[in-house]
Amino acid sequence: MSSNNLAFPTADYEARLAKLRAEMDKRALDWLVITDPSNMAWISGYDGWSFYVHQAVIVGRSGMPLWWGRAMDALGALRTVYMPDDHVVGYDDIYVQNPDRHPHETLAELLLERGAETARIGVEMDNYYYSAAAHATLVGHLPQARIVDATGLVNWQRAVKSPAEIDRMRKAAGIVEAMHRRILEVAEPGLPKHHLVAEIMRASVLGTDEAWGDYPAIVPLTPSGMDATAPHLTWDDQPMRPGEATFFEIAGVYRRYHCPQSRTLFLGTMPDEFKRAEEAVLEASSKALDQAKPGNTCADIANAFNTTLNARGYVKESRCGYAIGLSYPPDWGERTMSFRSDDTTVLEPGMTFHFMPALWLDTGGIEITEPILITETGVECLSSLPREVCIK
Amino acid sequence: MSSNNLAFPTADYEARLAKLRAEMDKRALDWLVITDPSNMAWISGYDGWSFYVHQAVIVGRSGMPLWWGRAMDALGALRTVYMPDDHVVGYDDIYVQNPDRHPHETLAELLLERGAETARIGVEMDNYYYSAAAHATLVGHLPQARIVDATGLVNWQRAVKSPAEIDRMRKAAGIVEAMHRRILEVAEPGLPKHHLVAEIMRASVLGTDEAWGDYPAIVPLTPSGMDATAPHLTWDDQPMRPGEATFFEIAGVYRRYHCPQSRTLFLGTMPDEFKRAEEAVLEASSKALDQAKPGNTCADIANAFNTTLNARGYVKESRCGYAIGLSYPPDWGERTMSFRSDDTTVLEPGMTFHFMPALWLDTGGIEITEPILITETGVECLSSLPREVCIK
Repeated sequence: MSSNNLAFPTADYEARLAKLRAEMDKRALDWLVITDPSNMAWISGYDGWSFYVHQAVIVGRSGMPLWWGRAMDALGALRTVYMPDDHVVGYDDIYVQNPDRHPHETLAELLLERGAETARIGVEMDNYYYSAAAHATLVGHLPQARIVDATGLVNWQRAVKSPAEIDRMRKAAGIVEAMHRRILEVAEPGLPKHHLVAEIMRASVLGTDEAWGDYPAIVPLTPSGMDATAPHLTWDDQPMRPGEATFFEIAGVYRRYHCPQSRTLFLGTMPDEFKRAEEAVLEASSKALDQAKPGNTCADIANAFNTTLNARGYVKESRCGYAIGLSYPPDWGERTMSFRSDDTTVLEPGMTFHFMPALWLDTGGIEITEPILITETGVECLSSLPREVCIK
Repeated sequence: MSSNNLAFPTADYEARLAKLRAEMDKRALDWLVITDPSNMAWISGYDGWSFYVHQAVIVGRSGMPLWWGRAMDALGALRTVYMPDDHVVGYDDIYVQNPDRHPHETLAELLLERGAETARIGVEMDNYYYSAAAHATLVGHLPQARIVDATGLVNWQRAVKSPAEIDRMRKAAGIVEAMHRRILEVAEPGLPKHHLVAEIMRASVLGTDEAWGDYPAIVPLTPSGMDATAPHLTWDDQPMRPGEATFFEIAGVYRRYHCPQSRTLFLGTMPDEFKRAEEAVLEASSKALDQAKPGNTCADIANAFNTTLNARGYVKESRCGYAIGLSYPPDWGERTMSFRSDDTTVLEPGMTFHFMPALWLDTGGIEITEPILITETGVECLSSLPREVCIK
């Protein structure tokens, strides 16, 4: 433990652990194996780009969490987690990407040494980086244990943010605003797209006077014209063209806390068709955000959005938002709540979302989105950027 | 299919498919479900940041591959894959991150519709993004099929690069050289680390006169001083200090092909202890690269390196290199061969590796690494940067 690297005060981690353990008790879990990097960071403070090899934080019924991972990354754990050094366990490098061995053999041993032979153990079956082979190895080496699905268990504990977490997201909002301002400064017809992306990435790391920029869980998505009819294509070297819309789906990040926000830029004169779509999105967004308040549900927001949008003659097939906060690649979403008509989760103060009313039309895309915080009485947009499509 | 977005000529994809199918035949596989994004791109051309939701390319005994993924990403598939449009299948958004449903229910249906009820189906049990839940869903919905492990099957077909692939890696080498040159221009005592990283990221995307820069599968790793005793910590806002070493583990990327290369910078006067470590690494590297030629094995390289290093009084516990090429986050390695004493894979012309003789000492780290190509007669370093620790 290196206290100057510590992400939050120890008391915060203790409170998170107590909250998590209450949920483990409800589910009668003796152990929880946490493999999602964002969940690992939330419960232990661990921060490093090592999720390309198998690693986990293990929580039992008592005591502090254990960090387990590749021996060389144990050094990074010692410098970032809040637990004492003897709660960090490294496995030998021979287990790394070796077809004849699997790191989870050593995780099973670690659990057996701690008396988990017949325990009830939760694992994150559908969270990132918990592979089918990891699961098969764990099950094979703990034949008498009961291994049960705990996908999203930790993610749900993260839904309501502490004031310290909200402060980070506000700083991240400042960064994403600076990134959008930089886009408007440099974008122009003829500019190769990668030149623009280079400026966006530079701005994202430079951050603001208040906050340095961390890396986003998703790279900038900046498609123009027909490429913007598809949501997740990345950049190339083609020049920006007059008469084309470009959307910028980007996030500011401060110490792993994300504030994503999209805006759309049109070079030249916007066609009426595009203008109508913009008006529909803006009106539907306004109606949707009126529903964003404690006591309402995720579905209330989605229904208000879709009803208004449909009345204008547009249809959005996909969800119009999701929970956000602490994250690592490949996704800045929290993977719990979604703004869709069948999600009846009740909104609470301190929850944070990316309200994401993107429309991908036949001839281009419009993304005008808002990172939002549910307050005691309603909603607050974390960023104050104007919503309208920018025209240049 | 949008031919102007196509990564390689269709004939290249056909050759890859034939090669893959020969291996599937050896293993008596009727179907192969490919979920690793780098494998998906290699076999189909698909390129998008959508690997945070479940997706796959499916290869049967005949016909072209099928792309399967989220409906909104099918639009991106139509614009990047070489197959005709009816070989792209999207699933409904209701399956996305929804605790009550799993996208692999729809993948099982797709396989059943194509007669795979009792087929022998290979899956990538330990490749990225194939979760334990994905596997359990597939097995549960195909109760009569034989689902077997095919981890790394595609990755191994990628080991020997075509001239067109090597050309991309050479362009990527030009980019990483430009990134290192930019570091030497701007690094100085007092410079906040994130300001330096902002310049590195900008340079990586600007690329060279020949090649625009794509995003790397790992963000720049740039730790200084004690933080450099751990390999995978990311940046913060601390100033660079005189008397500290900083290593830069970075990659140039051209159209998803990576050329990673690390160099080390010392600000001030290098202590004798550090100088001795540098000499040991350089000598051991030279001996190791002498062994890099067709007919020798991965182990020959590792053994030459370790013997020389140990004679100088240093020990490196971890592998000293791995295969590289096409990649997506979270790792730019190809996850097949490693330079370690128990890897007896025979080297062949056209194989590409990151020779990675990093040393993490008690007081700092030295990384001086080489992206290499096995030639008909020996080895070629893809980059011509001088190896010595830079002093400024």
